[in-house]
Amino acid sequence: MDQPKRTEIADLGEFGLIDHLTGDLELKQPSSVRGVGDDAAVVDYGGEALTLLSTDMLLEGIHFDLMYAPLKHLGYKAVVVNLSDIYAMNGRPRQVTVSLGLSNRFSVEAVEELYEGIKLACTRYGVDLIGGDTNSSRQGLVLSVAALGQVDRERVTYRNTARVGDLLCVTGNLGAAFLGLQLLEREKQLYLDNPDTQPDLGESAYLIERQLKPEARKEMIEAFEKNGLVPTSMIDVSDGLASDLFHICTQSGVGAFVEESGVPIHPDAQMQALEFKLDPVTCALNGGEDYELLFTIAPEEVDKVRFLPDIYIAGEMVPKADGIKLHTKGGNIHDIQAQGWQHLKA
Amino acid sequence: MDQPKRTEIADLGEFGLIDHLTGDLELKQPSSVRGVGDDAAVVDYGGEALTLLSTDMLLEGIHFDLMYAPLKHLGYKAVVVNLSDIYAMNGRPRQVTVSLGLSNRFSVEAVEELYEGIKLACTRYGVDLIGGDTNSSRQGLVLSVAALGQVDRERVTYRNTARVGDLLCVTGNLGAAFLGLQLLEREKQLYLDNPDTQPDLGESAYLIERQLKPEARKEMIEAFEKNGLVPTSMIDVSDGLASDLFHICTQSGVGAFVEESGVPIHPDAQMQALEFKLDPVTCALNGGEDYELLFTIAPEEVDKVRFLPDIYIAGEMVPKADGIKLHTKGGNIHDIQAQGWQHLKA
Repeated sequence: MDQPKRTEIADLGEFGLIDHLTGDLELKQPSSVRGVGDDAAVVDYGGEALTLLSTDMLLEGIHFDLMYAPLKHLGYKAVVVNLSDIYAMNGRPRQVTVSLGLSNRFSVEAVEELYEGIKLACTRYGVDLIGGDTNSSRQGLVLSVAALGQVDRERVTYRNTARVGDLLCVTGNLGAAFLGLQLLEREKQLYLDNPDTQPDLGESAYLIERQLKPEARKEMIEAFEKNGLVPTSMIDVSDGLASDLFHICTQSGVGAFVEESGVPIHPDAQMQALEFKLDPVTCALNGGEDYELLFTIAPEEVDKVRFLPDIYIAGEMVPKADGIKLHTKGGNIHDIQAQGWQHLKA
Repeated sequence: MDQPKRTEIADLGEFGLIDHLTGDLELKQPSSVRGVGDDAAVVDYGGEALTLLSTDMLLEGIHFDLMYAPLKHLGYKAVVVNLSDIYAMNGRPRQVTVSLGLSNRFSVEAVEELYEGIKLACTRYGVDLIGGDTNSSRQGLVLSVAALGQVDRERVTYRNTARVGDLLCVTGNLGAAFLGLQLLEREKQLYLDNPDTQPDLGESAYLIERQLKPEARKEMIEAFEKNGLVPTSMIDVSDGLASDLFHICTQSGVGAFVEESGVPIHPDAQMQALEFKLDPVTCALNGGEDYELLFTIAPEEVDKVRFLPDIYIAGEMVPKADGIKLHTKGGNIHDIQAQGWQHLKA
């Protein structure tokens, strides 16, 4: 008898699996403007603004490790990563829902801590917690957040609208969250090997915080509006600049030329990478979880970002045939590879 | 040294935990109309209709058992239970997002089956799948669906607006999904005891389908609109009539008097309950997962439902002091107890 065919998810990878499952989706509702494939879905319910919906699931053992992620930070992060998706559409988050799967190893006090972080993020970003679903879980902790937001019709910014000649910009700095994770993993290992070890994280507070309690770029979206700037395309840096730039390029049908000297790296990340014998630029390109904004602007708009703090011009969009390249400080040119996350290969 | 205080979630129960965590929430966004505590959250983004958002998480080992839940049915059900929440607000679902946690024991073919069910539900109910998040999971399968919908301002129906004197109505029939689950559990046990056993489900197709592939009450909401009826309150029957009636009563500040003869039970459910030596009415009141609609109407509107197929008048709303009671066919009067689900006690 023939065995049924079995294709491993790892053979397709994250992006391949999603394309495979959702490639044939049609939008039939007149109110559906944009479906799968951007930071948030866009619907038009006829009001002044468009409505945005993003959703992200965090699973214990995959996205966080309760050995070092305090529950309060985890609740905060679960909300923030969803808000980041709304900002990445150039929108404003308004409401969130939080669904939880809790095993009975959690006490009420532990769930309270988680909720403290959720509520703190809501307060800081000015969004309301309007619903959710609380369940027990046989296994680990699961958090699933949905964020609702709004964006003006003339300001909505997609991934697939970058044009050749546009400037590539990035906010803040990259790689710090990844290096924070490496530090936490190292300390965890040391602790497991010898529970009497005291963690040595004193010099790395910034990196740890970037990993455990990231922030979303609310003030950038406000600055764009104040300066009359609408990026030509935008995405948030959740998978690393390489992967996220890859999304902009493939969806827009363009290439990109990134200047190594234009990739912002925090001095603590620089130092920590060297201590780990890692290339800081590789960490910045492939690290992920920075929740910075990666966006393109028309070249004539450059003065609108030049004087904004914390925005860096990292390169330029080029014809598709020119590929996605890094121009190193040493004068070499390398291909930039999109990695995505590799969880499904675990 | 004092031990930190530890309160078990089971001591509060599902509803107690949610109240405890969300009791102090304030809605600060002008667009937030209704937050936690109804079938869906309600926001007002200024269009002609209000926007509805519901979310539900299904966890392997808690909400489903892959030994007998085919993946296609599971995908279908995950969407339908969310649509049911939108209908329970008297609204129309428009879009859904689906987030998945998948362990590597799933093949691409298995995920395709799951998606077939998701897409089938979307097609049948006329909603678009517009997004989601695909993750790996260390443990079981997790599905988290969010549904977006719309409801006319003058038609939105809450849980907390039932009035003394209103008639209590219920659609379809109750208890079948619970009895379907008992059948599946029995056959699973027989199979585990002796893998050569052939499952004996032939006479029970209706009950099994009600458990594995429930439907939401789209056509009822359409019939209400056609007949110019706006219920005074409504909820979907997901936890069982007893629990869901309890929500309407406590939130509305009223009591209820339920006639046993008015509780609709399918003949197959009746038979199966007796075979299991269970009281059919208890199954109907406490079974859950029927996804019928439980609603109240002003008594002068009774002619608007009397001639609709599949709607039953099950009782009447009474002053709070009179409690929530069942009037049995034998003439006795019992208190109805809300059970909720007890997963967190597992």
